[in-house]
Amino acid sequence: MALGVFYAVWGLLLEVAIAFGPVPRITWEHREVQLIHFNESKVSNYSTLLLSEDKNVLYVGAREVIFALNAVNIAEKQHELHWKAAEDKRTKCAVKGKSEQTECRNYVRVLQQLNDTFLYVCGTNAFQPTCDYVNLTSFELGGKNEDGKGRCPFDPAQSYTSVMVDEELYSGTSYNFLGSEPIISRHSHQSPLRTEYAIPWLNEPNFVFADVIRADQNSTDGEDDKIYFFFTEVSVEYECIGKLMIPRIARVCKRDQGGLRILQKKWTSFLKARLICTIPDKNLIFNVINDVFILKSPTLKEPVIYGVFTPQLNNVGLSAVCAYSLSTVEEVFSKGKYMQSAIVEQAHTKWVRYNGEIPNPRPGACINNEAGGSSYMSSLNLPDKTLQFVRDHPLMDDSVTPMGDRPRLVKQDVKYTQIVVDRVRALNGTMYDVMFIGTDRGAVHKAISYENGMHIIEETQFFPDFEPVQTLLLSSKTGRKYLFAGSNSGVVQSPVAFCDKYTTCVDCVLARDPYCAWKPLEASCVDIFKEAEIGRNWIQNIGGDASSCSASSPIPFPPTGTSFLSCVGSDSPPSPTSTQPDVWSSTDPIKVMLLPPFLSDQTQHVSVRGPFHLFCQATGPDGSYFVWKKNGQTMKACIMEQSHVLLDGRVHVLSWVKDSVSENTEYTCSFVSEVGNVTSEVLITVEDKGSAGQDAWTKDFDTWRSAISEHATMMQNWRKTWETCNKKNSL
Amino acid sequence: MALGVFYAVWGLLLEVAIAFGPVPRITWEHREVQLIHFNESKVSNYSTLLLSEDKNVLYVGAREVIFALNAVNIAEKQHELHWKAAEDKRTKCAVKGKSEQTECRNYVRVLQQLNDTFLYVCGTNAFQPTCDYVNLTSFELGGKNEDGKGRCPFDPAQSYTSVMVDEELYSGTSYNFLGSEPIISRHSHQSPLRTEYAIPWLNEPNFVFADVIRADQNSTDGEDDKIYFFFTEVSVEYECIGKLMIPRIARVCKRDQGGLRILQKKWTSFLKARLICTIPDKNLIFNVINDVFILKSPTLKEPVIYGVFTPQLNNVGLSAVCAYSLSTVEEVFSKGKYMQSAIVEQAHTKWVRYNGEIPNPRPGACINNEAGGSSYMSSLNLPDKTLQFVRDHPLMDDSVTPMGDRPRLVKQDVKYTQIVVDRVRALNGTMYDVMFIGTDRGAVHKAISYENGMHIIEETQFFPDFEPVQTLLLSSKTGRKYLFAGSNSGVVQSPVAFCDKYTTCVDCVLARDPYCAWKPLEASCVDIFKEAEIGRNWIQNIGGDASSCSASSPIPFPPTGTSFLSCVGSDSPPSPTSTQPDVWSSTDPIKVMLLPPFLSDQTQHVSVRGPFHLFCQATGPDGSYFVWKKNGQTMKACIMEQSHVLLDGRVHVLSWVKDSVSENTEYTCSFVSEVGNVTSEVLITVEDKGSAGQDAWTKDFDTWRSAISEHATMMQNWRKTWETCNKKNSL
Repeated sequence: MALGVFYAVWGLLLEVAIAFGPVPRITWEHREVQLIHFNESKVSNYSTLLLSEDKNVLYVGAREVIFALNAVNIAEKQHELHWKAAEDKRTKCAVKGKSEQTECRNYVRVLQQLNDTFLYVCGTNAFQPTCDYVNLTSFELGGKNEDGKGRCPFDPAQSYTSVMVDEELYSGTSYNFLGSEPIISRHSHQSPLRTEYAIPWLNEPNFVFADVIRADQNSTDGEDDKIYFFFTEVSVEYECIGKLMIPRIARVCKRDQGGLRILQKKWTSFLKARLICTIPDKNLIFNVINDVFILKSPTLKEPVIYGVFTPQLNNVGLSAVCAYSLSTVEEVFSKGKYMQSAIVEQAHTKWVRYNGEIPNPRPGACINNEAGGSSYMSSLNLPDKTLQFVRDHPLMDDSVTPMGDRPRLVKQDVKYTQIVVDRVRALNGTMYDVMFIGTDRGAVHKAISYENGMHIIEETQFFPDFEPVQTLLLSSKTGRKYLFAGSNSGVVQSPVAFCDKYTTCVDCVLARDPYCAWKPLEASCVDIFKEAEIGRNWIQNIGGDASSCSASSPIPFPPTGTSFLSCVGSDSPPSPTSTQPDVWSSTDPIKVMLLPPFLSDQTQHVSVRGPFHLFCQATGPDGSYFVWKKNGQTMKACIMEQSHVLLDGRVHVLSWVKDSVSENTEYTCSFVSEVGNVTSEVLITVEDKGSAGQDAWTKDFDTWRSAISEHATMMQNWRKTWETCNKKNSL
Repeated sequence: MALGVFYAVWGLLLEVAIAFGPVPRITWEHREVQLIHFNESKVSNYSTLLLSEDKNVLYVGAREVIFALNAVNIAEKQHELHWKAAEDKRTKCAVKGKSEQTECRNYVRVLQQLNDTFLYVCGTNAFQPTCDYVNLTSFELGGKNEDGKGRCPFDPAQSYTSVMVDEELYSGTSYNFLGSEPIISRHSHQSPLRTEYAIPWLNEPNFVFADVIRADQNSTDGEDDKIYFFFTEVSVEYECIGKLMIPRIARVCKRDQGGLRILQKKWTSFLKARLICTIPDKNLIFNVINDVFILKSPTLKEPVIYGVFTPQLNNVGLSAVCAYSLSTVEEVFSKGKYMQSAIVEQAHTKWVRYNGEIPNPRPGACINNEAGGSSYMSSLNLPDKTLQFVRDHPLMDDSVTPMGDRPRLVKQDVKYTQIVVDRVRALNGTMYDVMFIGTDRGAVHKAISYENGMHIIEETQFFPDFEPVQTLLLSSKTGRKYLFAGSNSGVVQSPVAFCDKYTTCVDCVLARDPYCAWKPLEASCVDIFKEAEIGRNWIQNIGGDASSCSASSPIPFPPTGTSFLSCVGSDSPPSPTSTQPDVWSSTDPIKVMLLPPFLSDQTQHVSVRGPFHLFCQATGPDGSYFVWKKNGQTMKACIMEQSHVLLDGRVHVLSWVKDSVSENTEYTCSFVSEVGNVTSEVLITVEDKGSAGQDAWTKDFDTWRSAISEHATMMQNWRKTWETCNKKNSL
């Protein structure tokens, strides 16, 4: 039973277990922030979003409906268009063994802007995918009912992605009823193209994203526009235990027209490579890609590809964000080695690096001036050798490594589903890529990476019922930046920052939010991108140094933030469900917060020298403690203090004193922490023995009566809170 | 940004994240239970334990010392033997670049009973492994100083395992200074044997365990005794991302004498197979084996192999126990397919199933009567074809699957390092395999598996400084069963059960510990294996049904268990270190426990109708709640209740009432949970206005004085508790 050399391994694992996951600095509950909701009864699956920035319209594709919403306030519906699967199609679909009530409906999966006057839309249409045009003037369907095969999945549960480029639709989906034939295709009247139906091309892919990257307009080499696809597929090159998934980037060229004899009506420019998102020295492998966002900004030399990943194996709650530079991607496709397959013992295939001669023009390369110069003006002219090679070698041997060779962010106990990224200039001029990352529990994390690491600015609960964030979209108009998120139950619109929620300079600066700065004169925390001009004395420090905040800033009292209470009334006997197991665990781990009952609520008369208790409780960062004062003097008596750690790392401290006094005495309890203090106070009045009698009794009775009445109101309010929360918990 | 088909995957992952890991029903802190310690100052690395059940001696191999301890009380040292590396060897070792103070010492790694009079011992001896004999009469070394190469590692950080079979040592270790040449060998004067130095035989193995399984004495087929080795090695058959580790079982036959021309002085019976410990439908792969225990019991048809595993990839705290039947193992080796390697493109190797003809006698099979009958009386006679085949095909294509096709136990947030298993008969006659599993944080989990799943009976903190459990040993003498655990800092002896720690019938029965039963007449919880006879009315229920406990058993008050408090005095100003972040999180998650201040401590006089507060706080299982009574009647007033979840899953509930009374009133708060209730009570006395005056004042003053004095005592006690706890935390 010797343990042997596993120490080293244990050490590593331990480090991993402990080190991971910056905790969101603040968590906004659903009701704490101003989110705008849109959903209609009986409508579900708000999964496809399209933003028209010019028209300020958000188009939403849901189950059997398409909506046009005011993008400034999505609660304002401008149009709606019902698009149901016909009765006979639903019947046919049900006959084939699908559920008539759920699967045999029309789920909108493609929603693209064709031009100024039309949207191009496709829906699953009871497993008979159909596409049509929406006239934006009348917001009606054209009734074309084109066959949507290859553009839209048959099955609403299958993966899909699409992008409209110059009025041609590029899509990744499945081509048949069973969903067994994957396809990346271009829907085009002039030159429709598709992938070969072969394992080396696509092997059980899950499509997550597609986008176009335009060639540099100023370049003279005639480089083509390129369309990139992102998906996870079953590996051919690795043979792990079971099917190993591999995240891929694939690309095709816009000017591709297919081959003449070989690869006729097929891509001649389809190449794919592995996306690496791993921490090798910690044995962490993120091999399932869930979403991608391509950040294109005039302030960037080149686009940056952001991907969110989870591991396939042993995933009990790990997610990562990796970022890739476009030049790394282009290098792999334009200069990398190819893989080839070899047959072993007549039955097995092994993929190894191809070390032989590579035909000219380079297989899979876009037609540019160089190729054009050598008389290949079109892919139709490409030599058979090149076409044969690319048909058999679509997979690159080289992989795309992330910027910095490791993830930008690794987070434990969360599953990231979606990402969008905004690039903003902080007050001091530094540019930050602010990531908004959706989770499978309805929340969105806002994070930045800076010199010293990662910082999760905040977590916002977009969907109160903890549904997965299915779609995330960012409007980029200056001063009107919004996040839009779609889930099964609805759409939510959110500002990109909640600066006004910070009421003190320290809170505002410690948020380390590039959108927010403190205006000392107005004593308010503002979104700098909504301000007409920037003041010189505004305070912002992304590094988290709040020393510029004047020491005299007032301590907020009663404390900001929400505390949740349940009130167990007498008519409903206390039941186990009346406790609220986890409401505190998602609040701000850094803010200090006194919890009821505050000292001020404990006002009481005491008898002379009769002992009494006073209680204070609070939550705050680890290391926080109470200081009690009696008439302004730090108390000499023994103060009891209990503390324990909450799930989110904060401590909850309960402190009490037992004391007795002979005259009226003022007590304060201050909760002292590294991020600030909060204080509660009470005046203990001593029963005046001399005047004890009917007057005092009457006064006491009045006090008592008003206390009863106050209590009743409090009880009602708390009951509401409790019921809301309870409902939330039972969902 | 479409999410696509990942719902299904998310659902699965979510389930995994939530479902795993039974929580230990009770946790014993280091000081709460009677553990016997042994360690000597300046001695470290108590890593090799050997128990002589006949002599009741525990031999301990540490750094440069061997101890003989009384196995009934290891605090009693019987002998010690210093065995240092010679000065010149240490110098040489240091010259080669190793640390003279740490690595260039003599770490005892082999400690085996040769016969009644001698131990066989080997040590790393400053990277020049040496073996010797310990005379058990004089407890002195023989001074033979045999070269220990191949029996003991050079490097104390490298893995090793050994087993003594019929005075011959079988060991798995590394054969050279660099540790790059792994070896499984037999040290024998007649027939020393070893493995080929070739990747297909051993590929960077980490040895964890070896044991012999004797052939059935009653069998007539002349089957040989077999020695099994367990290790993790780098896979040759899988090509995952990076080096994929594979847990292996290998075996050799005792009568093996090597080949004559081929495999001369090498094993002709070396075969190895993959041990499977996975949950494929949850994508969980436990591919690193950390320890093995082979359970041999007369009540078992055949030995059962228990292994503890962790994942290599994405391991942020997952462990599993898998159990294998010996017949499954034998089936794989005696009838399974072999693997073969094929060369691909002149540079790559791929391992695939061998489907060709298998030579006769079967390669790697032990010589038994069947083989003997066909004139192969010894491995020396085996035909070249058989020998060549086994040399090139040591790896089986078939794998060893666990009993029930899945782990016996999967636990999150823990790293299991060691395992021993005891088989015990419960009161009702059912046999249970009780697993004792060491963790890398110095704790031992005691767990059973039963029809409906797994149950972790208890967690005991063996090593207060959270060091990894390096060795675990079980003495099996009836009535004298002990666990012995070795770590870097010392050895701990523990009883196998702490029945007497349960003070109520419900606690005793709900422990679901097969060792423990409740004796109703004596009202005590006893270890049934220490009792002379078993009473008919004793209560035990491994299923967890405590209804047999009479309903009248008293509710303990004040509650059992420890509560930790800190008392911040006036002389030492409160400092951040005075909070105790995590002391509650390691106590029993099931027991309910009221926390101070109890109601009884809140005794106070109140003025007529003056409002006052009463507080109760408690911890217990999720769903527990408070019931308040006023003069025996469930309170009609609004009761405030706050609850939050602690790190270990329990809830902490704080409840208070604000009330006012005109006459003396009794209040009780009961904390109600599924595992029992605890109650606190107080009598609130109302200031008698009529007699208010000097008498009352004097009485109050006396009360106050005695309260001050009580407080001082409490404060001192709490300070002690706090200091102890604080020390523990800072270790």
